[in-house]
Amino acid sequence: MSVAIKDFKDNVGKSVTIQGWMFNKRSSGKVAFLELRDGSGETQGVVVQVSSEAFKIAQELNLEASVEVTGTVSRHPKFKDKFELQVFAIKVFQNPTEEYPIGKKEHGPEFLLDNRHLWLRSRRQAAIQKIRHTAMYSIMDFFDKRGFTRIDAPIFTPNACEGTTTLFSVDYFDEGKAYLSQSGQLYQEAAIFGLGKVYDFGPVFRAEKSKTRRHLTEFWMMDAEMAFHDQKMNMDVQEAMFVYIVEKVLEKNMPELVVLERNVEELQRVKGPFHHIKHKDAWKKLADAGFAPRENDDFGADEEIALANMFDRPVFVENYPAGVKAFYMKRDPSDDSRVLCADMLLPGYGEVIGGSQREDDYNILLGCIKDHGLKESDFSWYLDLRKYGSVPHSGFGIGLERMVTWLCALPHVRESIPFPRLINRLRP
Amino acid sequence: MSVAIKDFKDNVGKSVTIQGWMFNKRSSGKVAFLELRDGSGETQGVVVQVSSEAFKIAQELNLEASVEVTGTVSRHPKFKDKFELQVFAIKVFQNPTEEYPIGKKEHGPEFLLDNRHLWLRSRRQAAIQKIRHTAMYSIMDFFDKRGFTRIDAPIFTPNACEGTTTLFSVDYFDEGKAYLSQSGQLYQEAAIFGLGKVYDFGPVFRAEKSKTRRHLTEFWMMDAEMAFHDQKMNMDVQEAMFVYIVEKVLEKNMPELVVLERNVEELQRVKGPFHHIKHKDAWKKLADAGFAPRENDDFGADEEIALANMFDRPVFVENYPAGVKAFYMKRDPSDDSRVLCADMLLPGYGEVIGGSQREDDYNILLGCIKDHGLKESDFSWYLDLRKYGSVPHSGFGIGLERMVTWLCALPHVRESIPFPRLINRLRP
Repeated sequence: MSVAIKDFKDNVGKSVTIQGWMFNKRSSGKVAFLELRDGSGETQGVVVQVSSEAFKIAQELNLEASVEVTGTVSRHPKFKDKFELQVFAIKVFQNPTEEYPIGKKEHGPEFLLDNRHLWLRSRRQAAIQKIRHTAMYSIMDFFDKRGFTRIDAPIFTPNACEGTTTLFSVDYFDEGKAYLSQSGQLYQEAAIFGLGKVYDFGPVFRAEKSKTRRHLTEFWMMDAEMAFHDQKMNMDVQEAMFVYIVEKVLEKNMPELVVLERNVEELQRVKGPFHHIKHKDAWKKLADAGFAPRENDDFGADEEIALANMFDRPVFVENYPAGVKAFYMKRDPSDDSRVLCADMLLPGYGEVIGGSQREDDYNILLGCIKDHGLKESDFSWYLDLRKYGSVPHSGFGIGLERMVTWLCALPHVRESIPFPRLINRLRP
Repeated sequence: MSVAIKDFKDNVGKSVTIQGWMFNKRSSGKVAFLELRDGSGETQGVVVQVSSEAFKIAQELNLEASVEVTGTVSRHPKFKDKFELQVFAIKVFQNPTEEYPIGKKEHGPEFLLDNRHLWLRSRRQAAIQKIRHTAMYSIMDFFDKRGFTRIDAPIFTPNACEGTTTLFSVDYFDEGKAYLSQSGQLYQEAAIFGLGKVYDFGPVFRAEKSKTRRHLTEFWMMDAEMAFHDQKMNMDVQEAMFVYIVEKVLEKNMPELVVLERNVEELQRVKGPFHHIKHKDAWKKLADAGFAPRENDDFGADEEIALANMFDRPVFVENYPAGVKAFYMKRDPSDDSRVLCADMLLPGYGEVIGGSQREDDYNILLGCIKDHGLKESDFSWYLDLRKYGSVPHSGFGIGLERMVTWLCALPHVRESIPFPRLINRLRP
């Protein structure tokens, strides 16, 4: 009977066949121990009969050999939740003749990235991708359960909304240049009028010449938008969503978190209510911690992390100065210099979610567009949304890779995506 | 109490408040009937008290006015599953002063596409998007339940694998040109070695100068890939997935199918086992129907539809000639001129899924690459997968918009995606 390694717990004592790869081997001369994976899990195959055909095959197997192994599932003698396979037959699909490039020795990041197609097989990289899967799936599940409709935003967009310096462009037939989207938000706003609550989830692109631990040229972004939601309700949805994601990762990916040596307590602390602080007050806290206060500025990377680390759970930093935020954010009625927005910061990491209430007044929005030096004609369709039944609405965006980087506590965002694209990396 | 219109059935006799838009109005002088939507559903608001403030407001409302309406939920006098709102208060967010551009009169497709940001509010367009949502979600749900890991493929790819004529390109820093992906399949193949069963789901791009009912320049594609699956197992997964999608649409979207006047019986017929026919035999059937047989050619659009319509359910057309298919497909061991593949055709529509077993032998694959005039160096990473533990594997791709077009029985693929991109359309 062919089974997945993850289902060994239900097959103790039974004779089963697995199909997978041998990624490690120890042999004492009398016993061969084969470390096997099949994509669902890992196990140890034990081959004891020195005179058997299986033992002979086991002796000859090289790293990454693809095999079909038949044996009896047994409990690991020492570890309660571990199982082994007492092997009696091995069929070989391919025993590699060339040495597997990613051996036990340490490799530099450039070598590993050059071999990303092989590196993805490693225990750690597979664990990251499984956690990424859970994060993506639980976001979609969360929205599906709450009556959101998915509205994929276009990648090809006609205007360079905020200057062309960080945009990739393509020649688009007779229409001139098309730019690759940096956010689907404006399109989500259009969709709420027919569907109430919507989200998108797709790749976005940034041609930024930044080479930091937080930058990719291509990454996945989720934008949600909700009619009749003010900024308070908006933050409540974000909190509920984030708690749900972390819950699901803890529920489904404990083995992967162990592989990654993730501090699980930090994840278990992610429970509502999250902290809230006004941008103004955040600068006061930073000043107390020795930073030079710049009440009307955005935070730098160091300041953001220092601030995030002052809290034991995620924190919403609210009401940034209008000047440092996008044109579409609604002004705070109690202080016209600030907007009804919040960035959500994570301890040890910084910002992962940005959200705001949107300006819903036609004339004020038009003024904001002009103030930001944007062309009215480029936004005529967006302005239409404030002409025909405008409503209070808000939304937010979450960068998937930044979230995965935090969930897995990775040193660099590049491991959070299957095939990272950086300014100097386009392959494999 | 604020409720969603879809939940009226649970609130009969109760006083509730809804927030939404008025998209139609009838008034007899004594009674005003307001047709209201909130994104979750539609209802009729009945205002009877001529002397009331609510009646006065109702009289003045223009199409697409955004409102908060309070009243009592009642059963529709004639229709069992319909509910109304006996209105006693209306609060207006915005009563449009300009006439809503999409009125009751017929509009041409170009006008509607120019106003896609408003057109999406229409009952029919919202219904399509809800069905698209169900299709996407149920695909992801299907794979999640079966232990697949999502592996997003990159959009930026380094090589123009099969010529550059249908590829969009961007300038990529010092790396030269990057091409926008047409398929994530090759990347999925790399990922099975660590994760066993994987899928991607993202936008792909085709710079084809085709202006047909079936072409978009940007559309969503799902690619699945499975280690240790032969072509037979591959088709079984496709069938199970497709049955699941249709089941979910029938379960969740009956109101939308009614709006679209979809022939539901055609969907209900989608049950396994699907039909199977060899490509060779399909040509014989076509010959019987009067088509000129071209046993070693692909089908034209007319032939494909004629063939699909010979079956009452989806049909797998198997074993195409190698010459009309991609280089990576595994040759049929019993007939070297054909490959282990199948396209799945839908009655009334044609192809929506293409799948195959992949060539897993290094030398044969290298030969195929050369035979197709491709550069070995462009595929060195892909060839690596056949060097280090190669396994039999197969997979398939499904075009989301084609599937949605069929599910909704749309005349043109352009309505199946929120913001369609065609060779002459890049906005809004």
